[in-house]
Amino acid sequence: MLGLMQQWPLLCHKILDNAATQHGKREVVSRSCEGPIVRTTYAEIRQRALKVAQRLDRDGFRLGDRIATLAWNTARHIEAWYGIMGIGAVYHTLNPRLFPEQLVWIMNHAEDRAIFVDLTFMPLLEKIAGSVTSLKKVIVLTDSAHMPATALPNVVAYEEWLAEADGDFRWASFDENTAAGMCYTSGTTGDPKGVLYSHRSNVLHAMIAAMPDAMGISSRAVIMPVVPMFHANAWGLGQSGPMIGAKMVMPGGKMDGASIYELLDTEKVSFTAAVPTVWLMLLQYLEETGKKLPYLDKVVIGGSACPRAITQKFQENYDVQVIHAWGMTEMSPLGTLGSLKPEYVGLTGEARLDIQQTQGFAPFGVEMKVTDDNDNEHPWDGKTFGRLKVRGPAVARAYYGGAGTEQFDADGWFDTGDVAHIDPNGYMQITDRAKDVIKSGGEWISTIELENLAVSHPDIAEAAAIGVRHSKWDERPLLVVVKKPGKDLSKDEILGFMQGKIAKWWMPDDVAFVAEIPHTATGKIQKSTLRAQFRDYRLPTD
Amino acid sequence: MLGLMQQWPLLCHKILDNAATQHGKREVVSRSCEGPIVRTTYAEIRQRALKVAQRLDRDGFRLGDRIATLAWNTARHIEAWYGIMGIGAVYHTLNPRLFPEQLVWIMNHAEDRAIFVDLTFMPLLEKIAGSVTSLKKVIVLTDSAHMPATALPNVVAYEEWLAEADGDFRWASFDENTAAGMCYTSGTTGDPKGVLYSHRSNVLHAMIAAMPDAMGISSRAVIMPVVPMFHANAWGLGQSGPMIGAKMVMPGGKMDGASIYELLDTEKVSFTAAVPTVWLMLLQYLEETGKKLPYLDKVVIGGSACPRAITQKFQENYDVQVIHAWGMTEMSPLGTLGSLKPEYVGLTGEARLDIQQTQGFAPFGVEMKVTDDNDNEHPWDGKTFGRLKVRGPAVARAYYGGAGTEQFDADGWFDTGDVAHIDPNGYMQITDRAKDVIKSGGEWISTIELENLAVSHPDIAEAAAIGVRHSKWDERPLLVVVKKPGKDLSKDEILGFMQGKIAKWWMPDDVAFVAEIPHTATGKIQKSTLRAQFRDYRLPTD
Ligand SMILES: Nc1ncnc2c1ncn2[C@@H]1O[C@H](COP(=O)(O)OP(=O)(O)OP(=O)(O)O)[C@@H](O)[C@H]1O
Ligand SMILES: Nc1ncnc2c1ncn2[C@@H]1O[C@H](COP(=O)(O)OP(=O)(O)OP(=O)(O)O)[C@@H](O)[C@H]1O
Ligand SMILES: [Mg+2]
Ligand SMILES: [Mg+2]
Repeated sequence: MLGLMQQWPLLCHKILDNAATQHGKREVVSRSCEGPIVRTTYAEIRQRALKVAQRLDRDGFRLGDRIATLAWNTARHIEAWYGIMGIGAVYHTLNPRLFPEQLVWIMNHAEDRAIFVDLTFMPLLEKIAGSVTSLKKVIVLTDSAHMPATALPNVVAYEEWLAEADGDFRWASFDENTAAGMCYTSGTTGDPKGVLYSHRSNVLHAMIAAMPDAMGISSRAVIMPVVPMFHANAWGLGQSGPMIGAKMVMPGGKMDGASIYELLDTEKVSFTAAVPTVWLMLLQYLEETGKKLPYLDKVVIGGSACPRAITQKFQENYDVQVIHAWGMTEMSPLGTLGSLKPEYVGLTGEARLDIQQTQGFAPFGVEMKVTDDNDNEHPWDGKTFGRLKVRGPAVARAYYGGAGTEQFDADGWFDTGDVAHIDPNGYMQITDRAKDVIKSGGEWISTIELENLAVSHPDIAEAAAIGVRHSKWDERPLLVVVKKPGKDLSKDEILGFMQGKIAKWWMPDDVAFVAEIPHTATGKIQKSTLRAQFRDYRLPTD
Repeated sequence: MLGLMQQWPLLCHKILDNAATQHGKREVVSRSCEGPIVRTTYAEIRQRALKVAQRLDRDGFRLGDRIATLAWNTARHIEAWYGIMGIGAVYHTLNPRLFPEQLVWIMNHAEDRAIFVDLTFMPLLEKIAGSVTSLKKVIVLTDSAHMPATALPNVVAYEEWLAEADGDFRWASFDENTAAGMCYTSGTTGDPKGVLYSHRSNVLHAMIAAMPDAMGISSRAVIMPVVPMFHANAWGLGQSGPMIGAKMVMPGGKMDGASIYELLDTEKVSFTAAVPTVWLMLLQYLEETGKKLPYLDKVVIGGSACPRAITQKFQENYDVQVIHAWGMTEMSPLGTLGSLKPEYVGLTGEARLDIQQTQGFAPFGVEMKVTDDNDNEHPWDGKTFGRLKVRGPAVARAYYGGAGTEQFDADGWFDTGDVAHIDPNGYMQITDRAKDVIKSGGEWISTIELENLAVSHPDIAEAAAIGVRHSKWDERPLLVVVKKPGKDLSKDEILGFMQGKIAKWWMPDDVAFVAEIPHTATGKIQKSTLRAQFRDYRLPTD
């Protein structure tokens, strides 16, 4: 027997309708690509998003078409998203930090038919557009006064194009499982893979993200998504913000300490989110200038492990609560968040920081487990680590085009590729990537723990641990080290420093000094390249 | 094109799974019907709910079967809910305050096949069970030691029945639109009508209810649903509580001031919710004893208009934030909640209370509009009132058995039967029920405003305004008044008191003094009876 409740499909444009109706005058403030700070409201954004939809429709774009965006976080980018989704087309956020050939590969793979592009990225687009055969139209997110000269065909200035529409348009209606957005993974462990979000998954994810134990944001919050919209949906904030009717502050292309501080201060931002490197820059700026953060309540930090020092400084020097979060493109992206359950809320000092070093717990809507290679579940004991697997309404069930089928099992579990343990209270800690973990005599060694320990040495700038072939143990750890400029230190000094701080059999068999460690376009260590580099390395213990 | 996200149906038992996995040791404390305070956890509740499911299944109950509960708020009642839903059957909460013949009518209409019943209600059930032909089994929510002697057939003690199951059982799986629960409206305006909730609507409603601008509850909250589970799902708290992993305090059958205070105090309750009369009793108790509420942060008050004095006392004398809420059985029940948007958050004193007298604004997931009788939308100007219509994923699209089809239109709007206006910031205020509003010369007069004004006179105990036939104006207001014991006052004194405080043409044409005003079983004024009583009343102005 079915219930007798309304069929009210979870469609993204309902989020914007709600924002315009219930919070119509709430401001959205952007640092524009042209320079000045510009201000608009949810009511205006909805009106303009309807025009985007109307114009796209008139240009012949249809349900299911992939439409790329290569843009910073601004109100125009939000309008473009909702306009695209509003005709049932699919926004496809491109990461401008990727190498041009990666972008070409991704755009061709997705068959993007049009692109919204920021002024900043016109030179990049000019380089690659010719190689993307599906591309029919380029909409430059500016007005005609600021349009650059370009040899690209079918280029139009956004404001001019928009002015041709009167906004007398209705959102298309379709099934809530219709594709809404698309984003490729960062390509840290191989080729980027396409994730295809649905309207349903976006709406549910936005609700999950706003809940009190997740981001915990209300209409009274002033939220600044520093994490880019091209980085896994700005962690859902482009949907959660309008859903709850919070004022939004969009930082555009300037992510340096001074620029971020300026917006935090003048716009009285109470909530923000980004990867650790952004916060390193801000904290450095604050320390240099002696400035404070009187308005900021809470910062969500994720994308890679948040260094303990960042959490400590935010909390102890600036009275800003840190929520450490883990997620991935395949999860829309939120997986776990480190708000404090009653079991931990009383902790202070180092004990509190210890818990905040974990990546937090899964909210309702994310199921997780940790297994061995044979899918046997590990206990939640805070130490037994294994493959982290997840399920949920905002988790991918396949990649676009069918790559990576081995990551999805029959019971619906998605193998994240991360290695983790979970404590008895549900707090999960990432210890490695499955492809990076070192398997010594059948036992696993966490490369992240080795690296964290190594970089806590004052003379080490960066460190990467990789497994190197060993005739007896299969693999043994090699520590690859970049010294700080002007510093000198030996293998024995490093191993001496590590001694006693980790299990004996985890100790690296050797240390290799290098001038540089290879990184991906998004700044993550590229272990696959490093492993190839040391493929024939002979350990002294072998 | 469809997205490629997981099919993860929104099923209620996932809420309990999440509670047991992520918040397994969190306490659920109940005032038992046997007397003592008993303590359990989400992990235990899940284990026992699985046994309920297993036992129901073994007894032959199946997907779609309606299974009644006639019980107070206790952990056992929660177990029963999830156990029933876990086999795809439908919990049907019965309001024990209804008259026995109403209960018989409702149970036969729903065709309840079994019932979970509290000790308290055995005498009531014994009176009615024989008239409910579908009823096959009675499970008394107690252990064998406390089982009363009864002549009812097929009666078993819950604990004994449960002990026959080992809990080795899996939740059934089915479509998320499967019926999960059922509740009949209070019957204020006519016969009660059955609302059939689905798993999807329950889950979405629980998410909406927990959001920061709605109830705003996290795992750190200690929540006490004083509003009964038989009153529109305890406003969703039976689902929101486990969803967020909050400690729950279940007050059982004792709702007097002293009993409620005892739990608020000893269990350190931070959040609670109930109708105004409960809070009147509590406030009176606090005033008599001089006690304070150091742990309580927030109270949600709804079900009928919250008197200004209650809001004021909670906030000013006890530092407890009041959230005024409006809802109805047909809406699962939450419709609007009065948390403060940035536009109003700075208000203090009377201006703040003015806003808190409205019923608040609609969260994402509830759409609303106010129209005239021809479905033309009224502006959101805070004064033009009309029919309040709503849409949303937790709003009914029909009544069970097909009653009331005229309340549902082709565009999916449900006519609430309430009359309201909405202000420019989205704050809705109920001014009447459509059936009660007085239509004078084509214009509407709000009976609630007349009544609120009248009862603010110190000598008036209760007042009800009804429309009485008038040859020129169709209807004119008659004020029916119950004087406070020992007080004497005249029609002219009352009209003099009202003069100047409302529009001239709203002034009652007459005042009728009565010893008593008729009420429904749930304590609401029964205007239909009152109108019948005054059907032939001749106004002095006619
Ligand atoms: N708080 C965190 N701590 C540690 N690692 C994190 C954290 N947040 C995210 N990560 C890492 O980032 C990954 C998700 O990143 P993303 O989806 O951008 O692509 P990627 O995994 O780096 O690239 P690819 O999947 O293409 O190899 C996670 O699987 C995890 O390894
Ligand atoms: N905060 C509130 N202020 C004023 N009225 C309220 C409030 N909350 C609820 N109500 C009234 O209660 C109604 C919902 O009550 P409920 O669903 O219990 O049944 P009922 O409407 O009283 O009975 P029936 O529909 O059978 O006539 C609303 O439609 C509204 O009239
Ligand atoms: Mg990945
Ligand atoms: Mg009603």
